[in-house]
Amino acid sequence: MYGWTGRTVIVDLGNNSVTETKTEKNYVEQFIGGRGLACRFMQDFADPELDPLSPENPLIITTGPLTGTSVPMSGHFSITCKSSLTSTLFSTNVGGYFGAELKFAGIDALVITGKAEKPVYIKIFDEEVEILPAEHLWGKNTAETTNLLEEKGKVACIGKAGETLVSMANIVNDHIYSSGRGGHGAIAGSKNLKAIVVKGTNKIEVAKPDEFEKGIEKAKKLLTASPPASKGLKKYGSSVIIDLLDYMGTLPAMNFREKKFQNSEKLSGEELNNTFHLKEAPCYACPIGCKRTDPDGKPVPDYDSIWAFGPNIGNDDIILVRELDSLCLDYGLDPISVGSAIAAYMEIKPWITMDEVKEIATEIGEGTHYVCKGTHDYLQSIGKEECDTAVKGLEIPGYDPREIKGMAIAYATSNTGGSHLSAFMVGPEIMGKPMLLERDKFDGKAALVLYFQDLTAVIDSLVLCPFTMLAVGEVDFAALLNNLTGENYSAEELLKAGERIFNMERMFNLKAGIKSKDDTLPDIFFDDGDIEKNEFEKTILDYYHFRGWNVEGIPEEEKLKELDICEEKDRKDSSAE
Amino acid sequence: MYGWTGRTVIVDLGNNSVTETKTEKNYVEQFIGGRGLACRFMQDFADPELDPLSPENPLIITTGPLTGTSVPMSGHFSITCKSSLTSTLFSTNVGGYFGAELKFAGIDALVITGKAEKPVYIKIFDEEVEILPAEHLWGKNTAETTNLLEEKGKVACIGKAGETLVSMANIVNDHIYSSGRGGHGAIAGSKNLKAIVVKGTNKIEVAKPDEFEKGIEKAKKLLTASPPASKGLKKYGSSVIIDLLDYMGTLPAMNFREKKFQNSEKLSGEELNNTFHLKEAPCYACPIGCKRTDPDGKPVPDYDSIWAFGPNIGNDDIILVRELDSLCLDYGLDPISVGSAIAAYMEIKPWITMDEVKEIATEIGEGTHYVCKGTHDYLQSIGKEECDTAVKGLEIPGYDPREIKGMAIAYATSNTGGSHLSAFMVGPEIMGKPMLLERDKFDGKAALVLYFQDLTAVIDSLVLCPFTMLAVGEVDFAALLNNLTGENYSAEELLKAGERIFNMERMFNLKAGIKSKDDTLPDIFFDDGDIEKNEFEKTILDYYHFRGWNVEGIPEEEKLKELDICEEKDRKDSSAE
Repeated sequence: MYGWTGRTVIVDLGNNSVTETKTEKNYVEQFIGGRGLACRFMQDFADPELDPLSPENPLIITTGPLTGTSVPMSGHFSITCKSSLTSTLFSTNVGGYFGAELKFAGIDALVITGKAEKPVYIKIFDEEVEILPAEHLWGKNTAETTNLLEEKGKVACIGKAGETLVSMANIVNDHIYSSGRGGHGAIAGSKNLKAIVVKGTNKIEVAKPDEFEKGIEKAKKLLTASPPASKGLKKYGSSVIIDLLDYMGTLPAMNFREKKFQNSEKLSGEELNNTFHLKEAPCYACPIGCKRTDPDGKPVPDYDSIWAFGPNIGNDDIILVRELDSLCLDYGLDPISVGSAIAAYMEIKPWITMDEVKEIATEIGEGTHYVCKGTHDYLQSIGKEECDTAVKGLEIPGYDPREIKGMAIAYATSNTGGSHLSAFMVGPEIMGKPMLLERDKFDGKAALVLYFQDLTAVIDSLVLCPFTMLAVGEVDFAALLNNLTGENYSAEELLKAGERIFNMERMFNLKAGIKSKDDTLPDIFFDDGDIEKNEFEKTILDYYHFRGWNVEGIPEEEKLKELDICEEKDRKDSSAE
Repeated sequence: MYGWTGRTVIVDLGNNSVTETKTEKNYVEQFIGGRGLACRFMQDFADPELDPLSPENPLIITTGPLTGTSVPMSGHFSITCKSSLTSTLFSTNVGGYFGAELKFAGIDALVITGKAEKPVYIKIFDEEVEILPAEHLWGKNTAETTNLLEEKGKVACIGKAGETLVSMANIVNDHIYSSGRGGHGAIAGSKNLKAIVVKGTNKIEVAKPDEFEKGIEKAKKLLTASPPASKGLKKYGSSVIIDLLDYMGTLPAMNFREKKFQNSEKLSGEELNNTFHLKEAPCYACPIGCKRTDPDGKPVPDYDSIWAFGPNIGNDDIILVRELDSLCLDYGLDPISVGSAIAAYMEIKPWITMDEVKEIATEIGEGTHYVCKGTHDYLQSIGKEECDTAVKGLEIPGYDPREIKGMAIAYATSNTGGSHLSAFMVGPEIMGKPMLLERDKFDGKAALVLYFQDLTAVIDSLVLCPFTMLAVGEVDFAALLNNLTGENYSAEELLKAGERIFNMERMFNLKAGIKSKDDTLPDIFFDDGDIEKNEFEKTILDYYHFRGWNVEGIPEEEKLKELDICEEKDRKDSSAE
């Protein structure tokens, strides 16, 4: 196979075994790779009803057909598990260099199951996959761990937060990139898995090299011609979004009690640059380079982190924002969730000083703070639901669903809870990409959120950076995939695969106990009437209808058939006939 | 004013007078230019209840702020009137060179009212505007007329069809470009206006030349990076669409009785090239050049004409298609309406030979055939409604609303009847630009048609070629407009202006007698069940709702207030206070 390596590695840490299988052709045909392929493997390896931290539930790392090629922004890969924060299937799309290296090592998928008796790390060098002791690494932060391992290859690892099963724990790769949200670090920790180090020397073969090269040139042109990508992001990194949202008058603050933040200019892209002298730290094959460090290579926060530790907690001190961001990276923590935990905690215990804020963050990283298992659960347990900003346990980031109505539907219907990355409606509603939609209306948003969710599932499966969406469309993606692999996907078929992936994730979540009543927003967003609840609920019902789901949010038989999704049980039954 | 010339010329052919006024600042601020400005002037000069052919009703020719600049595809201008074919307000967006020349002559708007006693033409040379006798031109075809006048400047003229008030008569400019559809030629003919010839020597001043130039470079980059624009259209002209639709399995044929056409390859872009050796005949400032001639400069049909005289009448002879197309150009006729008339007529009188087809087309051009006043009216008068393919009197072109569901809503709700150019849903549903939508579903289409209608109104008002939409978005349009004019439109405000224009046209149409029952498709499209009527009607009601219109399709007071549209009467009342 071109594009795909055809190699799936299964590591069972429970019995210390490494086995390999051929990646099934029909899996990648139907689910592409990355998030989609992992979603398919979850059906084989995971039990939706089991505790996410139970050894049986897998942690799955997948590359996509485009990962590691010279397609712009193709250094991405996926990490997937049942999340201990949301109890849903949870894929993250991760940047850096680790994904490309895993591809060079010849791996489509790395399925990790079981729990090691003692801390271990997995070492991959092309065909060799070894499980090695990691007791000397346990307790070390992510920077130390990476430094100790990186002579052997690219490193992904957890910090202390993952070790202590904090539900906001990330996996950190290549020093400064991290696995989004959802507590993947805790899943690794629950398996006693400290790190994975990978080195690969294989070349990626291309079916139609000339056409593929042309497509790459075109994608680069599109990216450089797109101002949000080539001007905004290229100049200041993602921190430019704070300026944009502030300009649009929708920068939520103080745990969403406010919709504007007075001193936002102190946290602007320009201010960040003046203070830290930003240096681009682009992911593999990225012409934009939204990630930034200082001249010493130390990370500088991106928008999500600036928002979480800035406006969200009423802080306009950019130095403090960066300290908290660095602390999260060291411990392997998701800044959005940590910031949201602090913001909620500040409502319960007012007058917390900024010094105390650092203490709380440290306690979260150490696994000793009340909110470690998730802010949503903690607030429920003390009867303070009114401070909660989470959907399905995942706190909403700094894109206000009251002001960007498409985000309200996107958050409510995302398979991973309050994530902005399931359908980034900020693209159309704020940046006007690929088209400008009125952000204060629900009109037509049900169908568009659905479209962006499916398109995002495609991008997460190819795997490319979500920011490609600001300039490149599904027709171009299909051409790139076809010229790489020799397959013949139409753009429609790609989107259909995205729809298949999204529905399969939904099926998992339903089995995990998610109900239609969970497809909503916390009360805080309805309280001031900016979101009219009837209209919101009507739009959700429209969304179900467009999805081919019944009023309970359950996919109709006909839809599952159309998407060629059948339950494992049925499949076994039919193969036994 | 930058961008706008500030000069409006009013020619009253009834009393042989030319007057000038300053273009009102608030008109262009609110309505941009082109189609929007003309729409605003219609409120001042036209009576929606009067016969379109009555001398009182004006013919309005407008340039836009971008017309004649070096922005790609900015050689376009607008011609607007109350159409005798549809009885609606009808703007067309026209290419070529005439528009740019009119701008160089310093004209924002040319409002032509009254009826000359004898045939005349209007000659414009910068500040000079003259009404000159045209008896020597009357009866001549458009090529002859243009040849006789073009030493004086760029020429727009009517042929015999316009003179004899045929409802399908076009105005033809620069030899080969013509004013779309809607019978604008008949309005000119009803005023005894044979032609307009214009020469201009003024330069267009730019408020921020450097930024403007950068924006232009960017728009060019976006256009060359977009395959539908730079590959498809650039290679074969718009005829490439026939290949595309055929490939997608949706090329309607035989007056829409069939959804596929057997011998489409005989009419393909490649075949056209092999037969006529296509030469690009780009409009002013166009890097794409979709218009084609043969090496002698004689026009070669574009997609709409190929479809109308090919699949639509069951003809696969490309030579005949071209003969009919040329005949239309000579007479000044709209090929889509003529082809639709012939197709309908072939159902009433079967076994018509292709020789007879040419005779019918000639009779239409001469104004002697039954269908001259419109096929829809003719079919009504003989009780053959089942052959009708028109919405509000305008026949649907070769984009099948049964197979491209967004087009069904677009045709039904267009202010000009069955036009594909009011909201070209072929972009998203066939070409995947700016995003790929499922073409066999109504889901979400109400809101998207609305969006594309408003965006199109903006483009028609700037004025740019509608094909720009395949690559350039509203954010870029706003930047171009602002850097040219020194104004400060946000993309949202531009779209709001588009919405204002669309609603103002609707108000005109309501006064002209259009009712919500007219917002539908002919029976032929519902008969085979490909369009489920209930679902269609529900989508139309959703559309009304999203538009802020009541269930009768009438804009609510609140919406008109939001858009700052008030009736002339009210305005006078309030100014008298």
